[in-house]
Amino acid sequence: MSKGHATKSRIIETALRAASVGGLEGITLGKVAADMRMSKSGLFAHFDSKETLQVDVLNAAAEKFAEVVVAPSLTAPRGEPRLRALFDHWLEWEQHESLPGGCVFMHASAELDDRPGSARDALVDHQRRWMETLAKAVRLTIEVGHFRADVDSGLFAFQLYGIVLSYYHSARLFRDPDAKSRAVAAFESVVAAARRPIA
Amino acid sequence: MSKGHATKSRIIETALRAASVGGLEGITLGKVAADMRMSKSGLFAHFDSKETLQVDVLNAAAEKFAEVVVAPSLTAPRGEPRLRALFDHWLEWEQHESLPGGCVFMHASAELDDRPGSARDALVDHQRRWMETLAKAVRLTIEVGHFRADVDSGLFAFQLYGIVLSYYHSARLFRDPDAKSRAVAAFESVVAAARRPIA
Repeated sequence: MSKGHATKSRIIETALRAASVGGLEGITLGKVAADMRMSKSGLFAHFDSKETLQVDVLNAAAEKFAEVVVAPSLTAPRGEPRLRALFDHWLEWEQHESLPGGCVFMHASAELDDRPGSARDALVDHQRRWMETLAKAVRLTIEVGHFRADVDSGLFAFQLYGIVLSYYHSARLFRDPDAKSRAVAAFESVVAAARRPIA
Repeated sequence: MSKGHATKSRIIETALRAASVGGLEGITLGKVAADMRMSKSGLFAHFDSKETLQVDVLNAAAEKFAEVVVAPSLTAPRGEPRLRALFDHWLEWEQHESLPGGCVFMHASAELDDRPGSARDALVDHQRRWMETLAKAVRLTIEVGHFRADVDSGLFAFQLYGIVLSYYHSARLFRDPDAKSRAVAAFESVVAAARRPIA
């Protein structure tokens, strides 16, 4: 990695930590520059606008997500075990060391839903791909015979999304000690409803 | 209502619309003053700080929520009909005319989860009361015999929360035309799992 590239990825990493706490709008170039002990003009040599940096932060978070949540789950056998692995890693994601303030995508979703632009496009693209990964894992679970054939993979992904959002909400906002056990119970309930009856 | 009170509630209403789009941090006193055609110092005569205004905005939103979501549901008979009414009105809430950018509580949750202070306290207080209202409606549904006695009312409220969060997410971020039908299907699935088997 060239020196320029290394500096750029350190800037993105610093901005990602800021976005985890204060959202994409919480990335202030002055503060990022100060944290990096560099000048604001030095920072601008790497990013032509705040929006470019926001897009790079979302892309970096998506790469990390693929590494931390998706990749390790693909080693689990197809079907229910893999779906379960995806869910478990997803629950842990918001506690990743690079995210001191929780999931940056959740933050960004609230911020960008009404704000057209390249940052919103990047966010929607990542979130859609993740929903598609989940739906695909559900379809595989049907194929291997763990779930009934009439299970709606899109609805299942929607339900998992809701459970994880509710978990983040309970854990982060309410600091509810039951957040995790409720998320797991809600997951088991959705899985049980989809299982093929044992003939 | 005195003139002072009327002005104050118009300020709060204007700030609530801003918060619906850009979050509580999106309330800029300069912009609120401009929208109201008043001076910034005139605005400050009503609020001693931005945080006081944020708390008032959350309280005003909670009052509206009670009016639009809770009150009309209480006219439905206890049990499943009332629970269903609470859910239906909740889904409609983010389209309320006072919320051009969707649910202000969702926005505020992402913003305030890591930010201690009176705005966070007000938010947690309102959200807890709402979770308690839902859980109580579930307990009444058990009492009247529509749900099994072993249904966990806290878990049920957690699940409903997730469905609505996922709905907001799909509808606002993905502009998904299936968002509503999926939310309804997910609700029916949670209700079906809780129903008392017909003896």
